[in-house]
Amino acid sequence: MLNREDNELLTRVGPGTAMGELFRRFWLPAVPSHELPKPDGTPVRLRLLGEDLIAFRDTDGRVGLVSAYCPHRGASLFYGRNEEGGLRCVYHGWKFDAWGTCVEIPSEGVDSTYRTRIGLTAYPTEEAGGVVWTYMGPPQLAPERPRFEWTRVPDSHRNITVWVQETNWLQGAEGEIDSAHVSFLHTTLVPSEQPATVHRTITALDKKPKLIARETPYGMMSVARRNAGDGNYYWRVTQWLLPMYSLVPAYAWPVGGRAWVPIDDEHTYTWDYAYYPDRPLPDRYFQHIKSGPTFPPELDRCVYRLPNGTRIDTWRPRRNADNEFLLDREVQRTKTFTGIYGINDQDRAIQGSMGPICDRSREHLVATDAGIIMARRRLLKLAKDLQQGLEPPPAAHGAWYNVRPLDVVSPHAELDAVLEAHGADMRGQVA
Amino acid sequence: MLNREDNELLTRVGPGTAMGELFRRFWLPAVPSHELPKPDGTPVRLRLLGEDLIAFRDTDGRVGLVSAYCPHRGASLFYGRNEEGGLRCVYHGWKFDAWGTCVEIPSEGVDSTYRTRIGLTAYPTEEAGGVVWTYMGPPQLAPERPRFEWTRVPDSHRNITVWVQETNWLQGAEGEIDSAHVSFLHTTLVPSEQPATVHRTITALDKKPKLIARETPYGMMSVARRNAGDGNYYWRVTQWLLPMYSLVPAYAWPVGGRAWVPIDDEHTYTWDYAYYPDRPLPDRYFQHIKSGPTFPPELDRCVYRLPNGTRIDTWRPRRNADNEFLLDREVQRTKTFTGIYGINDQDRAIQGSMGPICDRSREHLVATDAGIIMARRRLLKLAKDLQQGLEPPPAAHGAWYNVRPLDVVSPHAELDAVLEAHGADMRGQVA
Amino acid sequence: MLNREDNELLTRVGPGTAMGELFRRFWLPAVPSHELPKPDGTPVRLRLLGEDLIAFRDTDGRVGLVSAYCPHRGASLFYGRNEEGGLRCVYHGWKFDAWGTCVEIPSEGVDSTYRTRIGLTAYPTEEAGGVVWTYMGPPQLAPERPRFEWTRVPDSHRNITVWVQETNWLQGAEGEIDSAHVSFLHTTLVPSEQPATVHRTITALDKKPKLIARETPYGMMSVARRNAGDGNYYWRVTQWLLPMYSLVPAYAWPVGGRAWVPIDDEHTYTWDYAYYPDRPLPDRYFQHIKSGPTFPPELDRCVYRLPNGTRIDTWRPRRNADNEFLLDREVQRTKTFTGIYGINDQDRAIQGSMGPICDRSREHLVATDAGIIMARRRLLKLAKDLQQGLEPPPAAHGAWYNVRPLDVVSPHAELDAVLEAHGADMRGQVA
Repeated sequence: MLNREDNELLTRVGPGTAMGELFRRFWLPAVPSHELPKPDGTPVRLRLLGEDLIAFRDTDGRVGLVSAYCPHRGASLFYGRNEEGGLRCVYHGWKFDAWGTCVEIPSEGVDSTYRTRIGLTAYPTEEAGGVVWTYMGPPQLAPERPRFEWTRVPDSHRNITVWVQETNWLQGAEGEIDSAHVSFLHTTLVPSEQPATVHRTITALDKKPKLIARETPYGMMSVARRNAGDGNYYWRVTQWLLPMYSLVPAYAWPVGGRAWVPIDDEHTYTWDYAYYPDRPLPDRYFQHIKSGPTFPPELDRCVYRLPNGTRIDTWRPRRNADNEFLLDREVQRTKTFTGIYGINDQDRAIQGSMGPICDRSREHLVATDAGIIMARRRLLKLAKDLQQGLEPPPAAHGAWYNVRPLDVVSPHAELDAVLEAHGADMRGQVA
Repeated sequence: MLNREDNELLTRVGPGTAMGELFRRFWLPAVPSHELPKPDGTPVRLRLLGEDLIAFRDTDGRVGLVSAYCPHRGASLFYGRNEEGGLRCVYHGWKFDAWGTCVEIPSEGVDSTYRTRIGLTAYPTEEAGGVVWTYMGPPQLAPERPRFEWTRVPDSHRNITVWVQETNWLQGAEGEIDSAHVSFLHTTLVPSEQPATVHRTITALDKKPKLIARETPYGMMSVARRNAGDGNYYWRVTQWLLPMYSLVPAYAWPVGGRAWVPIDDEHTYTWDYAYYPDRPLPDRYFQHIKSGPTFPPELDRCVYRLPNGTRIDTWRPRRNADNEFLLDREVQRTKTFTGIYGINDQDRAIQGSMGPICDRSREHLVATDAGIIMARRRLLKLAKDLQQGLEPPPAAHGAWYNVRPLDVVSPHAELDAVLEAHGADMRGQVA
Repeated sequence: MLNREDNELLTRVGPGTAMGELFRRFWLPAVPSHELPKPDGTPVRLRLLGEDLIAFRDTDGRVGLVSAYCPHRGASLFYGRNEEGGLRCVYHGWKFDAWGTCVEIPSEGVDSTYRTRIGLTAYPTEEAGGVVWTYMGPPQLAPERPRFEWTRVPDSHRNITVWVQETNWLQGAEGEIDSAHVSFLHTTLVPSEQPATVHRTITALDKKPKLIARETPYGMMSVARRNAGDGNYYWRVTQWLLPMYSLVPAYAWPVGGRAWVPIDDEHTYTWDYAYYPDRPLPDRYFQHIKSGPTFPPELDRCVYRLPNGTRIDTWRPRRNADNEFLLDREVQRTKTFTGIYGINDQDRAIQGSMGPICDRSREHLVATDAGIIMARRRLLKLAKDLQQGLEPPPAAHGAWYNVRPLDVVSPHAELDAVLEAHGADMRGQVA
């Protein structure tokens, strides 16, 4: 459990909050590149860390990520015209470029310098891996952008999806490093109901895995060792990377993971990435994910209205709290542990049921929660240090993120031996 | 009128509030037995006195009524599997029995005693009269369960219904002891529009009844005497039983009444019970109530979302504030006083129009409000006494509730004479 | 910009607020006469300055405007029966006349004087120009009702419409005196897309009008002078009249304007009036406005639910935030500046995008905002004076409002010369 103060500290992400400032020391995925397909196209509304933003691709193809509101009188730039090198507010025609600079105030004289004093808040962007990345902290402290292996493979090798989860970011992120829940939430009662993967079957059979949480410079390895019979062990090594990225072991490629980017305190963009390091994703993969059995869930494009009235352009899972996640009690009785269809649907159902912001002061944690405990401690320390003026370690650079997860059956009983056998630091092979 | 403090005191029902604690000294109907039809079936979500609860029938047929949230990490047990003697959280498989005892934590060793320290909050249940009853107060202070006549007749003699009213409990409960409103809210303009019951007609004709509020050990009699012509009086004796039960006089059997069980401060379960003491309810009765002319109103099964995000499994009246109770002004002009169809529809429309929690500091009461005044005083005294540590009188036992209401035309002009003539204490005849 | 305190002061309108009290020193349009078409008809729910009210037309044709809640126990008089000289609460039959006097309490004796002590809050009403007007301030301070020219022409010469705008009143009112936005928000990219009016074309061409804000006893003239070529100027003189009326110049008759009447702090009744001083509005006019290209927008009759739960009977624009104002990006790219259909749709989109209550402490105003600045200062001074006990000047009488706006191409370069040429005070010709 956390005391109430620490729970507040970890879950509040607006400007000026401890955790909000820590998030502002890392690059974050902002919007998929393909949602800004062409120059001078339709702007996209988003909200990051409690700030309303507009993303637009300018005439030269650069992506601007700017405050949603015109500094003149506060009209939303979502309605703006994206034209010739900038976004123009439709109320009085003020125009801003991708760096937030005001390039024209039509009512002012040509030689007026007023416009130089009223720029939009704008955050730097970089595009890589099909994602527009941004950094919302002090410019002089900007680290290198994460060099995840999936950001460096050809586009054909990778799939990127994003959707809204209706909880605080931490509930989602904790699910990534909680290997124990896999043995329950995501299991089937009838083995034949799912693809016969030996690993999943082991997951269901050995419900008391040995869990190891090992701190690393970039975050943590959350490791589960299960008996696989015949003197073998089934090892799952989940990478957890600051501040909220995961790389989750999969029995077979494509490998993948999630990023949990706070929209506000009670809503989160879940980013899913999946890739082969060495070859294109096959049609079969896209056919497989289309109906949402794993990640991503089935999604609908929507204008999502947040409680504060802000509207964002995003995707919402088709199975959600409004339709009870299409829970089928007969299926729960006879086929799957939950009666809910997809893996992520199951995650969102249970994480949402903990409330918008889980009250961790009422928890009763057990040994298998060691990974969650370690991650929280790490984040709490970094956030509190930052409150005291101590910046996160300079090690926060891009190469940190060039690691892989592991999913393997091995005769080794010790983690170090397993890591040794599979490349000690498990770095991605892509340059 | 009440001052603001007393209005707050009477209407707030969460844990730790004065009235909330008083409610926790009485047995309350929690869920109809038929909504938990079989062992190991689907759990039901409810909220009582501001607490989120799950009701489930275990393998042996016992009904458990437990806190909705798993003590491990706060996931809702609504998603749980109801299996072999307990409800199992689908997140990590923790299992709890009908008494809230944690009977298994799969990740813990068999000999771990951790599970004995983390039970769910659970409230005792008893089933009677088609209702699962519960008592949410200190166990050592539990009174006997109410022995209403309707809980002791055979199932065939009784009908039980429950639905959501979108107001504080007190607005509903006050309607029961307010005989005066019957002469207006529920009247027709054209006698032929309703079944020609002499009593109703008298109700409409004599709009200035003499009202008598007489305190009793179990609560109060709210009595209305109207002139019935030819030297006769039409007597209606409504029983009001602590803390919020009614037994309302009806011209003809079946007799009935309501219980007003707070969901939270602004929502209430209205329970309706109707019965013959000596014979089954005929098909004709069920045909009569089906379209909602009296009680219950026409209902739709629903997942009802409360403002705090909690969802409960219940029934909502088809005529409600969202459709203006299907008010028909032409009908109001020519046929009925309100232009709203059913008796309870009329009650909910007018009670809802007073706001979620009526501001009683603005009231201007008159003589016909004597019953309401007496009931409030009784509740205020009991609630304030309890705040001071003085428990409700020990007389709060089950036999209190074995009384009947009265609906009769009589030559007697005095209440005592009428009661004498109809059995002084009007106790139900069922053993 | 305004500091936060002044922004709060100007935008909050409930009872006891500074601006709320100032509004209560002026007559306001309450409800269109035609929505109370006949004696003893259906009452209408409205909310003015944060107060829930009921309007009803009594047997004699008088319009009562009274507090929505019965003083007895707080039931809404919307459900009341409008019958024989008064509105009767359906709960217990208490009856009130158009002056709020309680004329009957059925349960009280005929000689009881209790009813004389419990009248409803009622505001005086007058009908003129198709509008039921009201004054909500201290009776002894009531000014004359505004004698707008449009209130004095025959009904056939005038059209009145009202609808809900989902913002604070000031955002709407400021649009009226902001001539600059016309050159952007309401322009087309392709001249042929709109009726070929020389004036509109000039508006689009000369995007740097000279703006003049001139204070007047009744409020302000907000003037825009644009170059019209050939040594001519295109003058637009918008009249702004305390506390929130406009008369807006139009190229051709009918002339018109808007009143911005606060429902509560975040919702506003927009009243639109249009008229010919000397002849009936032709069918052509009604055909023109029907699909909402200008004012009024396309409307749907609705029961509008306010956030506090109050329901009002009014109209809602078909293009609204819930459907993104049917913004068409292709139209925006090729045909109109916004891609949004109607003039008022455009206004509501952009004004709504500033938030329910625009945060004016973040503004950066420019020279073309001079009219807005002057209006705010005037209102702030009057509201602060009133807080100090200084009533608005006695000049606040009906004849103030007998002025016209101006829309003309003229060779004069100075405002006084233009006004001189078109009747110095531009008073309406109707007696």
